[in-house]
Amino acid sequence: MKKPEEVLLDRAFHHTAMLKLARKRYRLPAEKMGRPDIIHNTLLQILETPLNWENQLRVLVHTQDDQVISINPKIRLPKNYVRFVGLMEQLFAKRRVPETGEQLMQLEKGTVRRLVSNIQGSTVLGLSVLGRPTLMRKVAEEAGKLTNPIVLIGGFPRGHFTDETKGVLSSIYRVDRESLDAWVVAGRFVYDFEWAIGVAQQRVNAKSKNDPHE
Amino acid sequence: MKKPEEVLLDRAFHHTAMLKLARKRYRLPAEKMGRPDIIHNTLLQILETPLNWENQLRVLVHTQDDQVISINPKIRLPKNYVRFVGLMEQLFAKRRVPETGEQLMQLEKGTVRRLVSNIQGSTVLGLSVLGRPTLMRKVAEEAGKLTNPIVLIGGFPRGHFTDETKGVLSSIYRVDRESLDAWVVAGRFVYDFEWAIGVAQQRVNAKSKNDPHE
Repeated sequence: MKKPEEVLLDRAFHHTAMLKLARKRYRLPAEKMGRPDIIHNTLLQILETPLNWENQLRVLVHTQDDQVISINPKIRLPKNYVRFVGLMEQLFAKRRVPETGEQLMQLEKGTVRRLVSNIQGSTVLGLSVLGRPTLMRKVAEEAGKLTNPIVLIGGFPRGHFTDETKGVLSSIYRVDRESLDAWVVAGRFVYDFEWAIGVAQQRVNAKSKNDPHE
Repeated sequence: MKKPEEVLLDRAFHHTAMLKLARKRYRLPAEKMGRPDIIHNTLLQILETPLNWENQLRVLVHTQDDQVISINPKIRLPKNYVRFVGLMEQLFAKRRVPETGEQLMQLEKGTVRRLVSNIQGSTVLGLSVLGRPTLMRKVAEEAGKLTNPIVLIGGFPRGHFTDETKGVLSSIYRVDRESLDAWVVAGRFVYDFEWAIGVAQQRVNAKSKNDPHE
């Protein structure tokens, strides 16, 4: 049987327990906790894309309690949510998955500020309804001109970036008049970025591995 | 306790049982069954979008055994997969959810052919790796010029459209050299279609309900 500290919190099932936990132990905003489904959906939308297949994407997940998950672009993420939760519980218990062999996910302590300063010459763009109205295509075009663009997306259901996080952003953009789910924003950015750097155009006419027309 | 016929099949948990079931009862291709997660991820990617908020999207799900799920654009889909499965089991048991009040999902018998013929003046575009290489933006622009465009996306992990389905398609397009997940294809089409009909451009500068700059 799993111990309580080995269970990945999910608001859909642990709502009451989480409220207590948030008060007593972490003192983190409860509204930003317990939504691993947001991370799962977002990863599913961006990891199996031409941008990642062309090795042009790196994904990092920063948690409320200042831990950072690094994701190997080669990972094949479980499509099923229940399996994903199992994988994340393993990651939080062992700090890496799988335990041996090539690492697919790693967990380390780290703030947003340190994470950004570790990426040399990077510029950080944030996406938030509090930002300046800008078409996503324009955001992607701007990112495409930068050496090491980092795009920050809030993986929480409501609420905004903390002041600490805002401190690392060079610009904040709002891409629609309403708040969009993190996975919609992430998927649209990745797609527009493929266009901005020419990946979409290059790939469409290339032959597939199993091209029926060959 | 749920009866076996009330359980939504999910390959992640019922793989062996499904193989037996596929052989004995339905005689449907097992490779196309048991992946409600594909439908869930795809719906999450397209229902909470500017296109749907502007009432420009209708979503229908056709199942292998010729049933059609109609989705009310006003639905707030459960983000959590386990809750989604519960909702779908309710739908298959009762043929509609919720049981009373405004219908959010409805289940009826129906073939792809009948579904298409019910939508007057419609043209059906299919997305498949077997299609003609075409940028998604071009597909969306073409769809934007049609009166009632229907875009068909295969909600299965591998395999292709059946001959019956192919019979209703006026064109088939391939948007990348590799096969993309249904939710990535659907999300990208919806986004490009927003551009094609001007929704993206119109909304970005509009005031939000809770505009912080007001």
